[in-house]
Amino acid sequence: MWPDNRITSLFNIEHPIMLAPMAGPGGAELASSVAQGGGLASLPCAMLSVERIRKDVSIIRGNRGTPINLNFFCHMPEPADAERDAQWKSRLSEYYVEFGLDSDKPVDAVNRAPFDEKMCSLVEELGPEVVSFHFGLPDESLLQRVRNAGCKIIASATMAMEAKYLADRGCDAIIAQGAEAGGHRGMFLTDNVASQAGTMALVPQVVDAVPVPVIAAGGISDARGIAAAFALGASAVQIGTAYLLCPEANVPEMHRDALRNAKDDETALTNVFSGRPARGIINRVMREVGPISSDTPAFPTAGGALAPLKAAAEALGKSDFTSLWSGQAAGLAREMPAQQLTETLANEAQALLKRLGGKKKRKW
Amino acid sequence: MWPDNRITSLFNIEHPIMLAPMAGPGGAELASSVAQGGGLASLPCAMLSVERIRKDVSIIRGNRGTPINLNFFCHMPEPADAERDAQWKSRLSEYYVEFGLDSDKPVDAVNRAPFDEKMCSLVEELGPEVVSFHFGLPDESLLQRVRNAGCKIIASATMAMEAKYLADRGCDAIIAQGAEAGGHRGMFLTDNVASQAGTMALVPQVVDAVPVPVIAAGGISDARGIAAAFALGASAVQIGTAYLLCPEANVPEMHRDALRNAKDDETALTNVFSGRPARGIINRVMREVGPISSDTPAFPTAGGALAPLKAAAEALGKSDFTSLWSGQAAGLAREMPAQQLTETLANEAQALLKRLGGKKKRKW
Repeated sequence: MWPDNRITSLFNIEHPIMLAPMAGPGGAELASSVAQGGGLASLPCAMLSVERIRKDVSIIRGNRGTPINLNFFCHMPEPADAERDAQWKSRLSEYYVEFGLDSDKPVDAVNRAPFDEKMCSLVEELGPEVVSFHFGLPDESLLQRVRNAGCKIIASATMAMEAKYLADRGCDAIIAQGAEAGGHRGMFLTDNVASQAGTMALVPQVVDAVPVPVIAAGGISDARGIAAAFALGASAVQIGTAYLLCPEANVPEMHRDALRNAKDDETALTNVFSGRPARGIINRVMREVGPISSDTPAFPTAGGALAPLKAAAEALGKSDFTSLWSGQAAGLAREMPAQQLTETLANEAQALLKRLGGKKKRKW
Repeated sequence: MWPDNRITSLFNIEHPIMLAPMAGPGGAELASSVAQGGGLASLPCAMLSVERIRKDVSIIRGNRGTPINLNFFCHMPEPADAERDAQWKSRLSEYYVEFGLDSDKPVDAVNRAPFDEKMCSLVEELGPEVVSFHFGLPDESLLQRVRNAGCKIIASATMAMEAKYLADRGCDAIIAQGAEAGGHRGMFLTDNVASQAGTMALVPQVVDAVPVPVIAAGGISDARGIAAAFALGASAVQIGTAYLLCPEANVPEMHRDALRNAKDDETALTNVFSGRPARGIINRVMREVGPISSDTPAFPTAGGALAPLKAAAEALGKSDFTSLWSGQAAGLAREMPAQQLTETLANEAQALLKRLGGKKKRKW
């Protein structure tokens, strides 16, 4: 059926399509729908409580006992730094004035927690088929417990060196995240976004660097991207942006509108929303403060001081301070339920692969 | 033979592989060898005299009367700006001191001329099968003369909007240049390099935007990239970096060594060598002055003040001030004559396309 079945076998899924875990947009409903379409259901856990994860996993499994991927962040939380926080507040002060907001009011904490003892116990309790990590890997002791729980372990690499690092530590597969990808870069051995390779260059170099199967991510929003990923040597794809327009995604209308209109050259990598570089559709705060600012505090706290501005602007119908995460191929996304999208992408990609092999001539 | 023969028919070539015109490394010898391998011979003319072009074309055609592509720049030369030149000299002054060079000595002019009346007459005289433009298109009157000379006209686009602009003006095919590509960005409707899409995202969006065939460029250095480009909807590929290690390329040993060792994350876009953004392997001047500097004078003059530093450093065996142009997939390049490389890439890509289509199962 597919040119390479290493990932479908490893995860026990029908189609080599993995839903990108997107903290915020992604929840039980989106994951369930992808699973029903034959793809891998991913649940982004970085912003969820133990209770919420437990409930979501039971919803996703409720349907047909489909495999599930729980995704966690592995950033090293930095100690509070009042000086950097003040510097960031000061950089944003003109906007606080513009919206008549009190910049002395303390900002809310941002809840993006790294994988820890508590979450590791939850993984042991729930036994998800797959656990994926972003921003590196957790401590070896935690990683060993995840392995002992019978979970397949995968993680994101943005360059061959990171892929090798992950494979050397026992990852069962590597997500090669190209520069096109929306949201946060998974990079952890570098912070140089200027040198991150695009998917076309990255995937074959990662494939050559590691003995385990590779999942291509970044700029893949339709069957052409899926077929191209297999050509590059990938064994599966991870798709995010294309799922954001599905009715099951928790994406506000403002963000959906931006995605519907986004052209190929209208995204950029920015650190203004979280303190770490992530790709989103260019808006006012990215243009005026970023896209990369040296004033942001450490991940994930930058969003705290932005929150009041976001709320005030959104109340006026403006997405000027809202993170509009998107990869570079939003223009290829189609609006349909996630199950249907997964099946459609799989069918179209298989047909395209056959056409490319000369089984059926393409007519011009 | 190939899933799409629009470009091979248009250019009357055997394989849908076009040598990227690389001013400096590319000359008659490299182009001839690619042509003998069945690809499209491209001669970069921006740095060549009329006499040199005439001679090179006769060498390339001498073999088997193979089709030829003459490539020209279409930048709008900016008037001399003594203040910006002085600013740039001042930015580089510490290096002049380090190498004991006289920074008051006038710098040599940089010879990258845009397509003009003189070159247009030469095109009419030589009648190349294909003329390609970088940085937009020439004036409509010149363009019409090229068309009347019977040449197919192609040009580079870095986003769908540029592709549409070029197709609307009668281009017969569009080169979609993804962010992975080495050397100068072809961008002409924007100067925002931060938003240039990667090949994976760019190609299908360009294919959807224009009615003419698309040539994929950027990060394609082996058969996997070629097959992927066809999957994305391209009708051919343009390959540059992979040809730089061929013995026929005019590439100094220092540059070859850098290419042999370049990892996927070791290039960046820089404007320090010419004043326009171009991708090269990161070296000292890129790290310390760039990669993007606001002090550079207009294209192509930035290289003038760098030339004495380049010469002094190279005399010490260092490439600290040398432009080491490269795309993001130098690591996939193999060292062999260009004819053999072209044939090998074509054969391997065809075999891979067949395998992807299920004609022959890949063994794991």
